[in-house]
Amino acid sequence: MAEHHLTEDDQTQFHYTVGPYADPVLEVEPGDTIAVETVDAFEGKITSEEDNPSEILEMPYLNPQCGPIHVEGAQKGDTLAITIESIEPRGPQPRGTTCLVPYFGGLTATDKTAMLHDPLPEVVKKLEVTTDGIEWDEETTIPYEPFIGTISTSPEIDSIGALTPHDHGGNMDLPDITPGTTVYLPVSTEGGLVYLGDCHAAQGDGELCGVAIEHPTTTTITVELIEDWPLEWPRLEDDEKIMSVGSVRPMEDAARVAYRDLIDWMAADYDFEELEAYMLLTQVGEARLGNMVDPNYTMGAGISKEYL
Amino acid sequence: MAEHHLTEDDQTQFHYTVGPYADPVLEVEPGDTIAVETVDAFEGKITSEEDNPSEILEMPYLNPQCGPIHVEGAQKGDTLAITIESIEPRGPQPRGTTCLVPYFGGLTATDKTAMLHDPLPEVVKKLEVTTDGIEWDEETTIPYEPFIGTISTSPEIDSIGALTPHDHGGNMDLPDITPGTTVYLPVSTEGGLVYLGDCHAAQGDGELCGVAIEHPTTTTITVELIEDWPLEWPRLEDDEKIMSVGSVRPMEDAARVAYRDLIDWMAADYDFEELEAYMLLTQVGEARLGNMVDPNYTMGAGISKEYL
Amino acid sequence: MAEHHLTEDDQTQFHYTVGPYADPVLEVEPGDTIAVETVDAFEGKITSEEDNPSEILEMPYLNPQCGPIHVEGAQKGDTLAITIESIEPRGPQPRGTTCLVPYFGGLTATDKTAMLHDPLPEVVKKLEVTTDGIEWDEETTIPYEPFIGTISTSPEIDSIGALTPHDHGGNMDLPDITPGTTVYLPVSTEGGLVYLGDCHAAQGDGELCGVAIEHPTTTTITVELIEDWPLEWPRLEDDEKIMSVGSVRPMEDAARVAYRDLIDWMAADYDFEELEAYMLLTQVGEARLGNMVDPNYTMGAGISKEYL
Amino acid sequence: MAEHHLTEDDQTQFHYTVGPYADPVLEVEPGDTIAVETVDAFEGKITSEEDNPSEILEMPYLNPQCGPIHVEGAQKGDTLAITIESIEPRGPQPRGTTCLVPYFGGLTATDKTAMLHDPLPEVVKKLEVTTDGIEWDEETTIPYEPFIGTISTSPEIDSIGALTPHDHGGNMDLPDITPGTTVYLPVSTEGGLVYLGDCHAAQGDGELCGVAIEHPTTTTITVELIEDWPLEWPRLEDDEKIMSVGSVRPMEDAARVAYRDLIDWMAADYDFEELEAYMLLTQVGEARLGNMVDPNYTMGAGISKEYL
Repeated sequence: MAEHHLTEDDQTQFHYTVGPYADPVLEVEPGDTIAVETVDAFEGKITSEEDNPSEILEMPYLNPQCGPIHVEGAQKGDTLAITIESIEPRGPQPRGTTCLVPYFGGLTATDKTAMLHDPLPEVVKKLEVTTDGIEWDEETTIPYEPFIGTISTSPEIDSIGALTPHDHGGNMDLPDITPGTTVYLPVSTEGGLVYLGDCHAAQGDGELCGVAIEHPTTTTITVELIEDWPLEWPRLEDDEKIMSVGSVRPMEDAARVAYRDLIDWMAADYDFEELEAYMLLTQVGEARLGNMVDPNYTMGAGISKEYL
Repeated sequence: MAEHHLTEDDQTQFHYTVGPYADPVLEVEPGDTIAVETVDAFEGKITSEEDNPSEILEMPYLNPQCGPIHVEGAQKGDTLAITIESIEPRGPQPRGTTCLVPYFGGLTATDKTAMLHDPLPEVVKKLEVTTDGIEWDEETTIPYEPFIGTISTSPEIDSIGALTPHDHGGNMDLPDITPGTTVYLPVSTEGGLVYLGDCHAAQGDGELCGVAIEHPTTTTITVELIEDWPLEWPRLEDDEKIMSVGSVRPMEDAARVAYRDLIDWMAADYDFEELEAYMLLTQVGEARLGNMVDPNYTMGAGISKEYL
Repeated sequence: MAEHHLTEDDQTQFHYTVGPYADPVLEVEPGDTIAVETVDAFEGKITSEEDNPSEILEMPYLNPQCGPIHVEGAQKGDTLAITIESIEPRGPQPRGTTCLVPYFGGLTATDKTAMLHDPLPEVVKKLEVTTDGIEWDEETTIPYEPFIGTISTSPEIDSIGALTPHDHGGNMDLPDITPGTTVYLPVSTEGGLVYLGDCHAAQGDGELCGVAIEHPTTTTITVELIEDWPLEWPRLEDDEKIMSVGSVRPMEDAARVAYRDLIDWMAADYDFEELEAYMLLTQVGEARLGNMVDPNYTMGAGISKEYL
Repeated sequence: MAEHHLTEDDQTQFHYTVGPYADPVLEVEPGDTIAVETVDAFEGKITSEEDNPSEILEMPYLNPQCGPIHVEGAQKGDTLAITIESIEPRGPQPRGTTCLVPYFGGLTATDKTAMLHDPLPEVVKKLEVTTDGIEWDEETTIPYEPFIGTISTSPEIDSIGALTPHDHGGNMDLPDITPGTTVYLPVSTEGGLVYLGDCHAAQGDGELCGVAIEHPTTTTITVELIEDWPLEWPRLEDDEKIMSVGSVRPMEDAARVAYRDLIDWMAADYDFEELEAYMLLTQVGEARLGNMVDPNYTMGAGISKEYL
C-alpha cells in the first residue's frame, strides 16, 4: 500500500495520445495510492483573457495526460478499480480557465458537424479557483465540484487521441468521476497503463461550449486490480449508485451503450434477468450527459443501489 | 377563475393526433383551473399480465389525449402557461401498467432504427399504484413521482401523432412536468387548443423500454395566457430552475435545441449576453433526458434560478 | 381511363400540410391520367434576384401542394401506383429559382441543428429553364432532369407539413421520382388522397443548400390502384431497378429503413430469403441520397432488376 | 521511377492499427510504383462455408494492412497522391469470401448501436472470383469491380484501428477507390507511412452487411508527393470527377464533412466562391455512400469535372 507522488517534474513530458507506445513514468502495486500533479487541458498556456486560443493551441498537442502508470500484474481481461481520493487545486491564481475555441463546442459548427459559418468569437475567462468555489463574476460564485475529465487505460494496440472518449475511458468529461467514486477501466495491455489529466473545477451537463473550468490539480487515486473481469465499457460506483458509461456518436447510441452495459452488469452481478432489468431501469434509471462536444459524446446510465 | 372538471364521460372520444381539426371539448378563460380525468396510454385495454400488447394495440390509435381545451383569447404568437397543480391516481387496482411492445423501445430495433432481428418478447406488468408508491415486486417499492407524459398545444395547420414530441410539446415524457411546474407552450392557432394525457406514476431518464408506469389519473392544471410571447420550443419553470425542451433526432440535436433555446431565454429575459450565457451553462447547465424511444428524442436543458 | 387536367384555377388553394382534413379537388378512377399544373416551392413569390427570401416566405405556408386527388375505391391497406408520365416546365422566364434561405440547408445551423452562428447570406438566383437545360451562368448549362420533389398520400389521422418526408411520401426530394418511374404510396385513408408539388428542374444528391432548381410545371401522372398491398414505406420502380425509400433522422436510420424495406420487398415478391437478400445487397445495392436538409433525411435503397 | 514488389513474405507481419509506431517495410521515392500482395480482410482464415466467423476472428486483430511504406521526403503538411494502377485477384479458388459476423453490419445491433437482441445467424459464402466476375450462385454473376477498401497514411501521434475510417483515410470502403483513381491522403508524419489492404472484388453502396466480397490481390499503386498541400480529409480524382470523403458519425455529419471539404477544394483550386459552389453542388453534386457499418460511416461528395 505504498503512496506515490507523481510531480510535474517526474512526468517530464505529457502525452496527447493514449496507447501502449509510451514508457511508464511510474510503476505501482495494486492497492497503492498515487498523488498526481495534473496540468490544465491547455498545459497552462492560456494565461490571460487577451490570449487567442487559436494562436496558442496546436492540434493534436492538446489535453496533456499524466502517466502512463504501470500496475504490476495487470493483464488483458482484468479491470482496474481506480478510486478518486481527492482533487485539490494547485498553482498560482487565477488558476481556472474557460474559453471559446473556434469550431469547437456544442453550439457551433465543428470539424465534424461541418458548415459554412464563420467561427464564433474567441473569448477567454481566467478565474480564481479555491475549494470554496470559483468566482465567476462579482455576483456569482460557482461551487467547487471537481472531477477528472480524462482518465484511461491503454487500448491493446491502438493509440487514441486525448480528446476522445471511448471504451478505454478517455475524455469522458463526466462529473460523476469525482472524489468518492471508483472508476472501473478495462485492462487491455500489460500493466493497464493508466493516463489521467484534464481536471475540472466545475462543469455542467454536456460541457456545452467544450471547455469547463480547467485547472491544475493534485489528484490522488488508489488503484486496485480486479483479475479476470473483462469490461466492454467503463463503469463507475459510489455509495449511492452504479453507472455504466457509453461514448460514441450519435448521442442516442451513447445512451444505448450505457444502458445496455448497465443491464449486463445488473444481470451478471446483481441477479437480474435482462428484461427485468430493462423494465426496472425504465422506471428508475438515471442518465447523465457527460459531453456533447468531444469526438464521441458521453452518456452515463446509472441505478440507485437501493434497487439492487 | 372558474374550476372545471373534464370527466371521461365529458370527453366522449379521445384523440390520437394533436391538431386544429378537432372540436374543443371545453372552453375556459385564462386563469381557470381544470381537473382532467386522463386514461392511461393504452386506454385501459391492457388489463392482465397475460395480455399481448401486439394483439391489443393498433397504430395509430395509441396514447389517447384529452381535450382539446380552448382558451379564450389565445392567439398565434401568445403562450399558454400551464401550471400542474396535482396528479392523483384513479381507477381500480392494479391501475399501473408497463410492458414491452414489439419493435418499440430504446434497446430494440424499431420501425426507424430498422434491423433484421426478431422482436424481443412481449412482457406485461400490472402494478398497484397509490400515492405511497408503486409495488414493483415483493422487495421493491418505487416512489410515486407522477408527471404528465404528453401535453400539447395545437400546431397551426399540421396534426401531429400523439406519440410524437416536437415544438408543440407532445409526447415529451419529461419527468420535470410534475406538480409545481409551469409548462409554457406556444399558441399557434386560435384558443391554443390544449391536449393532455399519458400520465406516468414514475419514470427513469429516457423511458428506456418505451413504457413507463402508465396509469389513469385526475390531473389538475391552471391555464394562464401570456400575450405576445412567441415561443419556438416548450419551456418549463419551477421554484428551482428554468428549462427549455428540445424534441428532435438525433439526440445531440435535441440537446442543441434545448440549450440554444435556453440561451435565447436567458438573453431575452435575464439580461445575459448570448456568449456569456453559453459559457456559464457550460459550468452549471443541467440536462435531463426525457425519452430515447419516441419518434423524436426529448432533452431538457435547465439552469438553477440562483444563477439568474 | 379518363384524362384530367388540374389547373391552377381548379386548385383554387394550395395545401401546406398533407392530411385527411382537406376536401378533394378532383376525383378519379384507377387508371386515370391527370395533368397537374404545379407551382414552384415558393408559390412563385420569389421573382427577382434582389428578393430576400426571409421577408417573403412565411412558415408554415411553404411548399404548396396540389390536390388532394381522391382515387375511387382506394382503402386503407391498398397501395397507389403512380406513374410519372411527363414533367414540362411552364410559365414565364426566368421560371427557375434557387436560393439560400436563412437557417435552412445542409451546411448551416438550422432550427433543429441549433447553433449560435449568424445566418449565412441570402442569395437568390433566377434561371432560364427549358427542356434543353438550365442556364446556370454563361459557361454552364445544367441538363433538364426534372422530378417531383414532393408527392404523398394522406396519413390516416395525422397531417404532416409539406416540408417533411416520411412514410406517406412527402418532401422526399429524390431525383429518381422522374418520368418513367412508378411510385408506390400506401393508402391510409379512403380515396388515398394524392398531393403533389415541388417539381425540380435538376437537383444533386442531398439537395445541399435546401433549394433545388424550383420551377412551375405541368406534371402528368397515371394512378393505378393495387388492392390489399399494405406498404410501410414508399417504393419506386422503373425499367432498371426497384427502390425503397426511408425518410427519418439520423441519416443512418434512413438508410436502414430503406434497405430493410427493400429486403422485405425482395423476400415477399422476388423469392429471396431475408439473409440472402441482405448479403446480395451488400455486393450490388444502390443507395441514393435524396435530401440532407428536410425535417427528415431521405435515402433510397435499390437493386438492379438483373439480380431479381 | 522504380518498381517495387511487396510480397506477403516481405511483409512478414500485418498491421491491425494504423499509426507511426510500426517500422516501414519498404522505402520508396516519389513517383515509384509498388505492387502489393494484399490478403483478405480475414487474413485468409475463413476457408469454408462451415466456418463460424465468431470462432475464428479475434478483435482487434482484424483487417490486416500491408505496409507501412515510407515515401522519401514526405513531411507533415504535404499530401500523397496515390494512383491505383491495377487490382488483380490472386490465390487459390474459391478466393472470395463474404459472411455475416455477429453484431456487425448495417441491419443488426452492434457494439455501438447496442440492443438486447440475440445476434443474427452466422453465414459464410465462399466464391469463385476472377476478372470476369464473381459467381454468386448458379443464376447470378456479379461483375468484378475491385477497389481498395482500406488505404491510409499514418496519423501524427494516434494509431487508429484498421476497421476505422477517418481523416487519415482508413477503412472507407468507398467503391470509387478503384483502378484509374488517384487518392489524396494527408501526410502527418515523416514519410507519410502508407498502409493498405482489404480489397473488395465488388461492393454495393453502404457495404450493407459489413462484409463485401473480400479477396487477396496484387494491387499496384504509384505514389507521388505534393508538397505543402495540407488536407483535412481524403480526396479522390479520376477522369470524370473530383470527390471529397468524410468519415464520421452520424451519417449526416459524414455528408456535411464531404460536401464542406469539396467546397473548400472548389474554392481553393477551381476559382469558385464558397456560396456559389454551395448552390451549384445543390444542383449537380454526387454523393456516394461508402459504408454504413464501420466505426465511422463514410460518404463521398463529388462533382463532375465538366462543371469545374
